[in-house]
Amino acid sequence: MFSLHPTLESDTCEITVLPLSCVLLMKDKGFPWLILVPKIEGVREIHALTPDDRALLIEEVSLASLILTKLFAPAKINVGALGNIVPQLHVHVIARFENDRAWPGPVWGNGPGDPYSEAELASIVSRLQDAFNRA
Amino acid sequence: MFSLHPTLESDTCEITVLPLSCVLLMKDKGFPWLILVPKIEGVREIHALTPDDRALLIEEVSLASLILTKLFAPAKINVGALGNIVPQLHVHVIARFENDRAWPGPVWGNGPGDPYSEAELASIVSRLQDAFNRA
Repeated sequence: MFSLHPTLESDTCEITVLPLSCVLLMKDKGFPWLILVPKIEGVREIHALTPDDRALLIEEVSLASLILTKLFAPAKINVGALGNIVPQLHVHVIARFENDRAWPGPVWGNGPGDPYSEAELASIVSRLQDAFNRA
Repeated sequence: MFSLHPTLESDTCEITVLPLSCVLLMKDKGFPWLILVPKIEGVREIHALTPDDRALLIEEVSLASLILTKLFAPAKINVGALGNIVPQLHVHVIARFENDRAWPGPVWGNGPGDPYSEAELASIVSRLQDAFNRA
């Protein structure tokens, strides 16, 4: 049985479900920021996945990266699997810009997020869902 | 023709060469910290690799992660591909501990490294090279 860690659940909203991973949007309008969570209970590290699941994971990371690039034209995509605070394996895929609040540093540990308004959140969720549906 | 970015070259020493990537050790004794650099000129993003190369990359990340886990028994492995400063695609694989200087934050942007002594560097390079040779 798979369930999301409560912190991931409260900080994000769901965009779609891919063969391996749930795709979540971080509710921080400072960055177009996706989080992929493999739907496998109890996994903390990439090396604990099977090789087949690792191959799927990196294809799903790549798809998320490509979608963020097409929609937002960022300067760089940042990909990270940290998990020092939230142990459930999750991979961040983040569109970065030279004028974002953390550039050129990492986004993690960069203070509280900047919340979307309800309309902004509905709009970005819908654009992302359309892009994943068309992929 | 493949060459390492000058910053990667100066901050690291080479451990081994895998089918896709050079494996480098960051010269910062605060963390057992590997960097994998795919030997492909001009690539900045994971989504710019071919699917075959992506599958190789995540297997090499997984191998590096497993080797760090066996040698150092860390609390967590952190994996990241940022590239906001050094554009050449490179993937960090870092052993993290609850008493390291950046825990639980990310290592990136955490100030200047803590250099190894010559003897310490020779020792960790040799342990890592042995582990990759046996893998």
